[in-house]
Amino acid sequence: MSELPTPTEATTTTAGLLSAIADTGRDRVRGGYSRPVFSTAERELVDWYVAELDRRGLQAQTDRNGIVWAWWNPAGAPPEGAIVTGSHLDSVPGGGAFDGPLGVASALRAVDLLREREVAPARPLGLAVFPEEEGSRFGVACLGSRLLTGAISAERALGLTDPDGNTFADVARAAGLDPAGFGRDEQTLARIGTFVELHVEQGRGLIDLGAPVAVASSIIGHGRWKFSVHGQGNHAGTTLLADRRDPLLAASRLVVAVREVAAAHPGTRATVGRLQPVPGGTNVIASRVDLWLDVRHPEDAVTRAVVAEISRRAQELAAGEGCTVEVREESFGGTVDFDPALARRLTTTLGGVPTLPTGAGHDAGVLAEHVPTAMLFTRNPTGVSHSPEEFCTDDDAERGSTALADVLADLLT
Amino acid sequence: MSELPTPTEATTTTAGLLSAIADTGRDRVRGGYSRPVFSTAERELVDWYVAELDRRGLQAQTDRNGIVWAWWNPAGAPPEGAIVTGSHLDSVPGGGAFDGPLGVASALRAVDLLREREVAPARPLGLAVFPEEEGSRFGVACLGSRLLTGAISAERALGLTDPDGNTFADVARAAGLDPAGFGRDEQTLARIGTFVELHVEQGRGLIDLGAPVAVASSIIGHGRWKFSVHGQGNHAGTTLLADRRDPLLAASRLVVAVREVAAAHPGTRATVGRLQPVPGGTNVIASRVDLWLDVRHPEDAVTRAVVAEISRRAQELAAGEGCTVEVREESFGGTVDFDPALARRLTTTLGGVPTLPTGAGHDAGVLAEHVPTAMLFTRNPTGVSHSPEEFCTDDDAERGSTALADVLADLLT
Repeated sequence: MSELPTPTEATTTTAGLLSAIADTGRDRVRGGYSRPVFSTAERELVDWYVAELDRRGLQAQTDRNGIVWAWWNPAGAPPEGAIVTGSHLDSVPGGGAFDGPLGVASALRAVDLLREREVAPARPLGLAVFPEEEGSRFGVACLGSRLLTGAISAERALGLTDPDGNTFADVARAAGLDPAGFGRDEQTLARIGTFVELHVEQGRGLIDLGAPVAVASSIIGHGRWKFSVHGQGNHAGTTLLADRRDPLLAASRLVVAVREVAAAHPGTRATVGRLQPVPGGTNVIASRVDLWLDVRHPEDAVTRAVVAEISRRAQELAAGEGCTVEVREESFGGTVDFDPALARRLTTTLGGVPTLPTGAGHDAGVLAEHVPTAMLFTRNPTGVSHSPEEFCTDDDAERGSTALADVLADLLT
Repeated sequence: MSELPTPTEATTTTAGLLSAIADTGRDRVRGGYSRPVFSTAERELVDWYVAELDRRGLQAQTDRNGIVWAWWNPAGAPPEGAIVTGSHLDSVPGGGAFDGPLGVASALRAVDLLREREVAPARPLGLAVFPEEEGSRFGVACLGSRLLTGAISAERALGLTDPDGNTFADVARAAGLDPAGFGRDEQTLARIGTFVELHVEQGRGLIDLGAPVAVASSIIGHGRWKFSVHGQGNHAGTTLLADRRDPLLAASRLVVAVREVAAAHPGTRATVGRLQPVPGGTNVIASRVDLWLDVRHPEDAVTRAVVAEISRRAQELAAGEGCTVEVREESFGGTVDFDPALARRLTTTLGGVPTLPTGAGHDAGVLAEHVPTAMLFTRNPTGVSHSPEEFCTDDDAERGSTALADVLADLLT
């Protein structure tokens, strides 16, 4: 139906699309990929994405919050109320190849499938790539969608710092964005009628069900808290045990306490995966330890109670070593139920695929507070994510893209 | 006595010399200075040092192990059996301004004082700057002096890696050194008749004694062990507690065990100051945690027993979390008693200054196994080292340089 160029042979499958970025951002120390937002690696992925859009006659536009958009609107319909799909290209440090890029590649592949099928969209189709979904550089997950919707203030976002001390404002400016433009964007929000994000599954749900694709029912509540334990930096060889105020000792006791408190509240997932002694020298007692606590539970009240109890334990454990501790909430989002009518519609369109909740956060969870939103999960045969072991077979990737095209065809016409 | 140029006014005190490098390698994240070996910052310090030598008519020569030498030999004596002084310019991450540079600046200042006093050296005076004294980049302290003396093999040294995965061989090559040249250097060793290193004190000894300068009696035994705890990297939100094999939990229990074991063996200093979860993301269960154990005790048998007990505990704690652990000794040096006759000679020359043992390692400790070696300590009014709080007053810095000049004048004539 389209006069637009069709993709070449090399990019006619989802796996074929992903193969073009298989060497970008590999992390030779951690394994897997490290593609932090606005890094060289993540920008190369954005360039790849823009070129793929261009091959489809679609023009990339970066909005004032750094979200990369493209609009396919063959019917010339009004810009409001589009069907939007997309995901993210940034990764956690040492992450897998699919978390984010699978949703982006599937969106491109779905456009190809819609055109092959000569679907005539009555509404615009929007494609979106959100920056800093992982929060692995600036500490707040889904930063792009939170800025778009006003879930985080521009002022707070611009002052966030990365591990090297660079502010989000400075890094965004270096990437060509104007810090003055960040914040809730009514015009762009109004264009999103419905949002559908495809994502690789990050647990074992589809393995156990023996199915390649599921529709999401909910995202369980999720927050991040930064604990900074302050002690006395000193020389490891000349400072007697009795003279020490060692923040790494207090922090280590805290990590053990996190597991104890979480185990006492069934269904809690509480994790410390990032912990940094400062300065971090072998022959140096640390002066400070920063650690990040990730807590998730289907009931928000339980999440709050767990964090309160961990914070109390942190104060006790720090004081016991002559240290002090500060606790700061970096983000918190309650459990999000996706629009049930939309989820039913997708399930029906896809012939009765299963529905699954997820413990992972997504931009879809942020957008769900504002517009009807749905998610599709594609099977991950290892059940492991945020790790080089994360995987998706070529066949399942294609099944996911096909399901996305089916859903979009239904919603667009 | 000398036809050589005299230093300008700006560099006539030890503090004046140090002021020229006060802005080099500042660490705006950790505070203090980060000057890892072969970094831009450390190379700037070497350039400063070479220029200061040049101003004194002394020519810098880098030997095949990366040690920067200069020789002052007005009597034209045979090259063997020189009196050598010097220290290092690299720092721990977020370290102080004096650990290393004070000894280097004091050596320069001592040359000026010897010339002012018209001392006529009968033997050559050598000045030396040793690379990677801290071991903060490649994990082995006193790497330059260990290579010179053969205490570490060239093969092992060249394969050491920094936190970014670069090998010592590659980094040394980039700094203009030939990896094929590394290893025990008989010719250079033969030139060192006596070695005297001045260093800022790293404990409270001279504060308690109310004295500005001391002579070292011994360096207590010191080793470093790397523990790698291997678990299962996974997603923090989707992995139930029961399904986790979290190496950071095991590592945290190990840090607590280190303190318990050390406390049970009086006089032990056992420290974990560097600990790195891999990949280190907030929303990622780590797949591996590397941590470094620093243990020191005056009796080597106690050090060995402490490390053996910690290693046993590590195996138990890792197994309890479904993890495994590898332990690797990165370095071990037994307690070193400095040459007692030389120490007595220095004490007498300096009018009966106190003698002190130290828990800190130094290149002097490595050289003491091969040549008569002594150390001078200059008072540190905070008692804190490997920290921005490390300090030395201008007056004490000058007293230290004067003491070094006194000692060198005695030994050279």
